[in-house]
Amino acid sequence: MKTQGVILALLLAANSNGLFAQTTDLRGFSSKSSVLQRTLEERFDQQLNAANIGRTIKELSAKPHHLGSEQGKIVAETILKRFKDYGWLDSKIERYEVLFPTPKTRVLTLTEPIQFTASLKEPAYADDASSGQSGQLPAYNAWGADGDVTGELIYVNFGLPEDYDRLEKLGLNVSGKIVIARYGRSWRGLKPKLAYERGAIGCIIYSDPKEDGYYKGDVYPAGPFKNENAAQRGSVLDVMVQPGDPLTPGIAATQTAERILKEDAQSILKIPVLPISYHDALPLLSALDGPVAPESWRGALPITYHIGAGRAKVHLKVASNWNRVSAYNVIAKIKGTVYPDQWVVRGNHHDAWVNGAADPVSGLAALLEEAKAIGALLKTGYKPKRTLVYCAWDGEEPGLLGSTEWVEDHADELSRKAVAYINTDGNGRGFLKAGGAQQLASLVTDIAQEVPDPQTQVSVLERRKSHDLVTGTTLKLKKERFDLNKFPLDALGTGSDYSPFFQHLGIPSLNFEFEGEDEGGEYHTNFDSYEDYVRFKDRNFDYGITLAKVTGRTLLRLAEADVLPFEYADLHVALKGYVQELIKLGDDLRESNAQENRLINEGKYQQAADPLTVFYVPRNKPVVPELDFANLDKAIAALGKSVENVSLRATKALQDKKERAGLSEILYQAERQLLLTAGLPQRPWYKHSLYAPGLHTGYSVKTLPGIREAIEQGDWFEVTKQVDLTAERIQQLAVFLATGLGTK
Amino acid sequence: MKTQGVILALLLAANSNGLFAQTTDLRGFSSKSSVLQRTLEERFDQQLNAANIGRTIKELSAKPHHLGSEQGKIVAETILKRFKDYGWLDSKIERYEVLFPTPKTRVLTLTEPIQFTASLKEPAYADDASSGQSGQLPAYNAWGADGDVTGELIYVNFGLPEDYDRLEKLGLNVSGKIVIARYGRSWRGLKPKLAYERGAIGCIIYSDPKEDGYYKGDVYPAGPFKNENAAQRGSVLDVMVQPGDPLTPGIAATQTAERILKEDAQSILKIPVLPISYHDALPLLSALDGPVAPESWRGALPITYHIGAGRAKVHLKVASNWNRVSAYNVIAKIKGTVYPDQWVVRGNHHDAWVNGAADPVSGLAALLEEAKAIGALLKTGYKPKRTLVYCAWDGEEPGLLGSTEWVEDHADELSRKAVAYINTDGNGRGFLKAGGAQQLASLVTDIAQEVPDPQTQVSVLERRKSHDLVTGTTLKLKKERFDLNKFPLDALGTGSDYSPFFQHLGIPSLNFEFEGEDEGGEYHTNFDSYEDYVRFKDRNFDYGITLAKVTGRTLLRLAEADVLPFEYADLHVALKGYVQELIKLGDDLRESNAQENRLINEGKYQQAADPLTVFYVPRNKPVVPELDFANLDKAIAALGKSVENVSLRATKALQDKKERAGLSEILYQAERQLLLTAGLPQRPWYKHSLYAPGLHTGYSVKTLPGIREAIEQGDWFEVTKQVDLTAERIQQLAVFLATGLGTK
Repeated sequence: MKTQGVILALLLAANSNGLFAQTTDLRGFSSKSSVLQRTLEERFDQQLNAANIGRTIKELSAKPHHLGSEQGKIVAETILKRFKDYGWLDSKIERYEVLFPTPKTRVLTLTEPIQFTASLKEPAYADDASSGQSGQLPAYNAWGADGDVTGELIYVNFGLPEDYDRLEKLGLNVSGKIVIARYGRSWRGLKPKLAYERGAIGCIIYSDPKEDGYYKGDVYPAGPFKNENAAQRGSVLDVMVQPGDPLTPGIAATQTAERILKEDAQSILKIPVLPISYHDALPLLSALDGPVAPESWRGALPITYHIGAGRAKVHLKVASNWNRVSAYNVIAKIKGTVYPDQWVVRGNHHDAWVNGAADPVSGLAALLEEAKAIGALLKTGYKPKRTLVYCAWDGEEPGLLGSTEWVEDHADELSRKAVAYINTDGNGRGFLKAGGAQQLASLVTDIAQEVPDPQTQVSVLERRKSHDLVTGTTLKLKKERFDLNKFPLDALGTGSDYSPFFQHLGIPSLNFEFEGEDEGGEYHTNFDSYEDYVRFKDRNFDYGITLAKVTGRTLLRLAEADVLPFEYADLHVALKGYVQELIKLGDDLRESNAQENRLINEGKYQQAADPLTVFYVPRNKPVVPELDFANLDKAIAALGKSVENVSLRATKALQDKKERAGLSEILYQAERQLLLTAGLPQRPWYKHSLYAPGLHTGYSVKTLPGIREAIEQGDWFEVTKQVDLTAERIQQLAVFLATGLGTK
Repeated sequence: MKTQGVILALLLAANSNGLFAQTTDLRGFSSKSSVLQRTLEERFDQQLNAANIGRTIKELSAKPHHLGSEQGKIVAETILKRFKDYGWLDSKIERYEVLFPTPKTRVLTLTEPIQFTASLKEPAYADDASSGQSGQLPAYNAWGADGDVTGELIYVNFGLPEDYDRLEKLGLNVSGKIVIARYGRSWRGLKPKLAYERGAIGCIIYSDPKEDGYYKGDVYPAGPFKNENAAQRGSVLDVMVQPGDPLTPGIAATQTAERILKEDAQSILKIPVLPISYHDALPLLSALDGPVAPESWRGALPITYHIGAGRAKVHLKVASNWNRVSAYNVIAKIKGTVYPDQWVVRGNHHDAWVNGAADPVSGLAALLEEAKAIGALLKTGYKPKRTLVYCAWDGEEPGLLGSTEWVEDHADELSRKAVAYINTDGNGRGFLKAGGAQQLASLVTDIAQEVPDPQTQVSVLERRKSHDLVTGTTLKLKKERFDLNKFPLDALGTGSDYSPFFQHLGIPSLNFEFEGEDEGGEYHTNFDSYEDYVRFKDRNFDYGITLAKVTGRTLLRLAEADVLPFEYADLHVALKGYVQELIKLGDDLRESNAQENRLINEGKYQQAADPLTVFYVPRNKPVVPELDFANLDKAIAALGKSVENVSLRATKALQDKKERAGLSEILYQAERQLLLTAGLPQRPWYKHSLYAPGLHTGYSVKTLPGIREAIEQGDWFEVTKQVDLTAERIQQLAVFLATGLGTK
């Protein structure tokens, strides 16, 4: 069946006057190149083997292999050997020396009104061989401060900024107290950070069964969700400010690098923090008195959620071994024959919190399968036009350590040479999810409509669209989704190794995964195991293959294109959308602040409040002025014209080789023009003017982040400044696309 | 303080050229009458005493006093004696003989996969003297069929029509099975009814802690919510089709009335049904296997909610004593001196499921306090212009038995004489909630802005507005609420004794209560007690006084008005709004059915479905034609003109007594013109063309119900028919308002 499909596709591709979509040329390829490329990609696909992906996952997740562990080094060496065996002869380990705290002391005791000592233990499961292995890091939050604190316990819901606003309205604060927050909604590291900024002396983060326990479905091992003893490990390094080794900000953590003092490191947390299971959280939450938590604060434990603080007191003692360890990045290259100085980079991390069958090995296995397939193609004579660079990162879990140090180490070369960076970080079952630089949206769409979904045989684009349609919650949303013919490429925040490439260096990046039908609670626990993976996630490794097809095609398309398939018209449209969002954000904030102030000033809050409960009238909100986006509009208009020109030029270049000189360089270097010289406010490491994670909100992206966060913070002076800085970058992009003359 | 307020108000009232709102005339009163009326109402207020309301609640809720009980009769006699003591000399008990099933057998056992027998017991509480009294009816659902059934258990969420649609998509049905539904969202009687219509053989209804247990707040006796053993009693008589004694449909259940056979009674349920606590539900729900319940189906028990049906089997055995009992309505009258044949009727029921401190005694206590105050006014020379009729109904809980039989008994006289019916049914703390005939919206607004809220001292109108503003969920909604200067008078569905007056006879009705700051789980349990009431509801009885002020003023205003203060312009505006809703309903349904069919026909559901789960493609939806509301629009336009004329006439009549003859009769008789001769489809007892409860959705109102339900059922022929029938009624209202010539 598959072979027949290949033949049909080749026939159709050859018949370029045919009626079918498949017969048109590939984006960025001449008609002749398109035929060759299709053949290449089919041959690539034929090399992919699901059983092999399964074996890779089993082998690489056989034992706990976190950064700095013996097994971590073994995994890196195994990967290196694989690359070499596959024919990637220019492969090596690049090593950095990074700080990495591991648990020394973890004590949590409820001291009042009753005594309870948290077990802080994940049990082994009879059905899951790896779950009870030695060498596991127990549940902890890396980069929490050492500390020994005792204080009143107070529940802060997810620990979001709005949760603290709510506490304020109830006349409560966390100053001098120990907060307990539930996992979810925001990135975990923001929970202790925001608590610390408000005066808390310690932070407990627990997994409520509402988020990924029995409320969601049957618990492990009967089902994929967290049982009462499971706890989520994870980093609380402030990657929203800067990822990577906190002692070598902006430079590579080589053996001899100059390091700052740990005490001076901006991204290390200032209070102790500990993650616990709901078994351990239940007695703590049950002990709270004070107001009943608002409805949206309540989880799925069989109790009335109270906020405290009052009678419940806890003792929290946490200490880490603050060791310097080696991070082993595996880097494999195949030099391009036509454009050796244009690099297409692909990566997935290899370190895991415990066994990490899903996170990261399932993605890494797809990457290795691609490398194997490309190796096989090499043996039959394939020579990439551009240089391929495959990377397996170490130390992603504690804070993108391996990738960030490598990028910082090779920043100049990458700035010059990197065409794109393609990331994965684990894989599941279901629907294609992708994020990235918006000029790559058409390429992703092309590929998504070519790759078949393994369960339904429609394209992964079609299946994603069907999913979005069926889950659309309003008539309007469904109508929009019916009309949408593009893959909905998200903008990228952070959360994996693309950040140093994308947001620090301005290298166009993409991040891919399949998800949506493999929900579970295994993330960062001792049951993210091969046994869990084959029972509840991509059991036949079909989506491992499908991911390799998507990422492999993306790589090969970028490596072989006559003209790089970057469509700046897509970026132009996306930018107009982002500005519309900002206008709406400002308008809504203006109206809601005005309404809120009217409610406050006319005494409506007092009148509505229940006199039997404590209620503090909210503070007046800032008046939001009319925001002036004219400079931004002008820059985007200029970009629109440049985009038309560069598109015409690309079309010509496909027909006439002489027109190609320098064009691809312009197309991939263009993203660099969007970097802010001084970076974003409060975080100079983040230089991209269009995309960043939320400084106060976590992994999720903020587009036009300088402007958006200034609006959210109500800093109108800063809004004006950021509009001008951003507009300048977009103007520069317009100039660069037209002339190739850059500021960088 | 209060006395000073009174004097100020009188001064202001006297000064009719003043600048203050208080100095304008009362609606329906001449300037001279307004001054007198204000004095009357102030004197009325002075008679109200909070401590007395507390004593009444304590006395009348001292023992269980359901329909047919010894204590029920004692309560009726106590009320009668009170009326007489208060000076209402024309007071009597009007007795009807009604069918009333009480529990004989209640057995519920889980037979597989493990054995568990439900306790079906509410414990007594040490702190609550009345909770353990003898004479309690245990938790049961009156009017469930006798039955002894065994079958597979299946969870149906709230048992709503859309819940069954969801089951169908999962390839599941309830045929031959016993359903377990949770209380909430819909009226309880619809749960077994809909289950029966789909082939279920039995129905269990349980109280999930999500709705009114620990999820909401602390449980009794620590807090007001249901503990694990509390269960909600209640009727499952099909009052959506017809309330009242099921053996005497449409006629009074007098001693000698001709009765139909129980087997022929349309409103008696056909399968056994039993309400249980979450203590008893937990083992049942835990035993279910099959698919995990969708997110919106999950409650707050510490389990993964599964749907079944499969391994779990239950045995349900229920039998009742189907006895005929006496219902004792207490009816007290004061004959009007000017318009003795114009009756202003006021009612609240007196029967309770157990002690009923909140439901119904807290409302009844306000009614009795009004009667006491009016009695005191009589003694100082007050003589009402119109006849006052005060009623304390029996048998409301099993299905509005007392009120319906009385209304059916006196239908002709009420049709001729009843100006309005003012209902209450328990009272709490918080915000004024009112529903009723829309031409009374301005009167309710007038009164709500005169009566002070006891906690904040702003008017109850202002406090309600503040509450609505603060709880508004969108900018748009808040803006609308800022702009709204009227009290938001709801349309009325059913759920209390106004139904026979309003929907059967077309008597303009109002229903009042205070609520919103007294939430609890005591409803229809053994802890709806005085102890619960004073701890968690209107603890100082301040809102009892406030309710008496609102209802008393409404009564006195209607009794004394020179011209009845009915504003048909309000009805006209409301009607236009209802039609807009219908247009939107049709348009939305047209678009969503078209979208749904496209999703089905293009295979989107199959593509989006998880192949590892069972999924049935939904059936195609009917195509919704363009709906023609032209006749309705014409009728409403005609009504608009009539309303202008009648308003002018009322304005003249206030200045010139000669103009008054017959005008008030037209104003209150007008509502009768809206009655459909043949009633609504499938339920001829419900005759009002503008308001009815939802036949398939419960207590909540459906406005323009004939048309709306035909649209919802997709019966386009019926839509046209109902548009014409409804338009005819509105045209007739227009004619009647202009000419006083009616069809009735």
